[in-house]
Amino acid sequence: MDSNKKMDRRQLVTLLGGLAGAGAAAHLFASTEKSAAAAGASGMQQTPWPYKPLDPDAVAQRAYESYLKGHCMYGSFEAIVGTVADQLGGPYKDFPYAMFKYGAGGVNGWATLCGSLNGSVAAIQLLSPNPNPLIDNLMAWYEVAPLPNFYPKGAKFPEVRSMAGTPLCHESIAHWCKKAEKKSYSPERVERCGTLTASVARQAVVLLNEQAAGKTMEVFGLSKQAQGCSGCHEKGGMVENIRAKMECGECHTAEVKSGHGK
Amino acid sequence: MDSNKKMDRRQLVTLLGGLAGAGAAAHLFASTEKSAAAAGASGMQQTPWPYKPLDPDAVAQRAYESYLKGHCMYGSFEAIVGTVADQLGGPYKDFPYAMFKYGAGGVNGWATLCGSLNGSVAAIQLLSPNPNPLIDNLMAWYEVAPLPNFYPKGAKFPEVRSMAGTPLCHESIAHWCKKAEKKSYSPERVERCGTLTASVARQAVVLLNEQAAGKTMEVFGLSKQAQGCSGCHEKGGMVENIRAKMECGECHTAEVKSGHGK
Repeated sequence: MDSNKKMDRRQLVTLLGGLAGAGAAAHLFASTEKSAAAAGASGMQQTPWPYKPLDPDAVAQRAYESYLKGHCMYGSFEAIVGTVADQLGGPYKDFPYAMFKYGAGGVNGWATLCGSLNGSVAAIQLLSPNPNPLIDNLMAWYEVAPLPNFYPKGAKFPEVRSMAGTPLCHESIAHWCKKAEKKSYSPERVERCGTLTASVARQAVVLLNEQAAGKTMEVFGLSKQAQGCSGCHEKGGMVENIRAKMECGECHTAEVKSGHGK
Repeated sequence: MDSNKKMDRRQLVTLLGGLAGAGAAAHLFASTEKSAAAAGASGMQQTPWPYKPLDPDAVAQRAYESYLKGHCMYGSFEAIVGTVADQLGGPYKDFPYAMFKYGAGGVNGWATLCGSLNGSVAAIQLLSPNPNPLIDNLMAWYEVAPLPNFYPKGAKFPEVRSMAGTPLCHESIAHWCKKAEKKSYSPERVERCGTLTASVARQAVVLLNEQAAGKTMEVFGLSKQAQGCSGCHEKGGMVENIRAKMECGECHTAEVKSGHGK
């Protein structure tokens, strides 16, 4: 699938304010988390942690360097939360960041959820008083944005951007390999996942900063194709057998080609 | 796809010792994590945290109850790590568990990685001196085991077990809905994801206990179908555009039906 078709599917997040109906907006914002403060937690256990706007580029550079130490999920989480912890000091600096090495390659090479997303949304949940719209923004952006869009110091290969199509590791890698004409075990792909980690961590900080500045997060609209799937498979549909915001047709190509459901 | 065909695809983990070749075993064990202790970390930041065998059923019951408070990822992680933290005391009890609410419904409803897995593998990475084989065991088991297989006190609906097919949320839910003849937004499905959270957390503890007792983890073999895909798409293959251990044919049905690659 070429880039133009992908852009038709789900428009970039910043363009989406007018596309989502009131129902979608209500759905996204309804599940706003109550902070742990309300539950009587204290210190480091109290969420969200205090957050002041960060420098997105500095966090992105740190994410690239952390990726080289502990892969994608560790890289994005350590860069965002580690920067906050450096500011807060005390027990905040004692967080066991190494636990997030598990997210490498979509969980220890299983190629499920992209680790740069897994780490970034964990950071968002830890740092935001209302994480859900930020998470939805970041996930939707990841599906359609040409990435990586941040190239850190130390990166040595030419910039090649591709659209992931879904938040899943193997889709993201396969699309990039095709665009770059490189193999999945090549040094170029290894570096690309580092620059991707930097790019996703950077975008998470942009969103956290916007929220901290009082900007209302825009919601995203499902693609027309996914809306068609949801009509039967989501809540209230004839089948109602899933709960999903992810793009459908990237994997379920047979159904798309056959005109299933039309 | 019926249950018998699924069992043909990837045999249960406990049967798999003899199926994986030396190459696969080397691949699984090669990326064993160096503990953060070696890097000079101390206290709560030092991983793995001290681990003594836990009662799998007690953790499972706690996971179900935590699921009711913070959904699937929070439920599995809080039950396993919270039980360890209760034993260790001190700063270990200060961990910000609420951050794992993001994993609900495959990350805030996106239906990617099952949250009960996301939380359980995070716990494994935090608690195990050699997490990779445990994570691979748990992920492979989740794909093919009839689940939920633990029904906690407080659960009220009839037991219905299904095979997820992949580690992804929407696949897991869709298969269960078909087997149970229930909808994805039904109270039965909501309870099922709680009993699933209990079941997956329980299995993670079983694996952690086996490792603590010195038992060598068995590796798993890819299904014949996935081996066929990997022959071209994985390392050294003609295409080499992915890195994955996940089952392929569950989603890429068009390729399977068309005999793609044969």
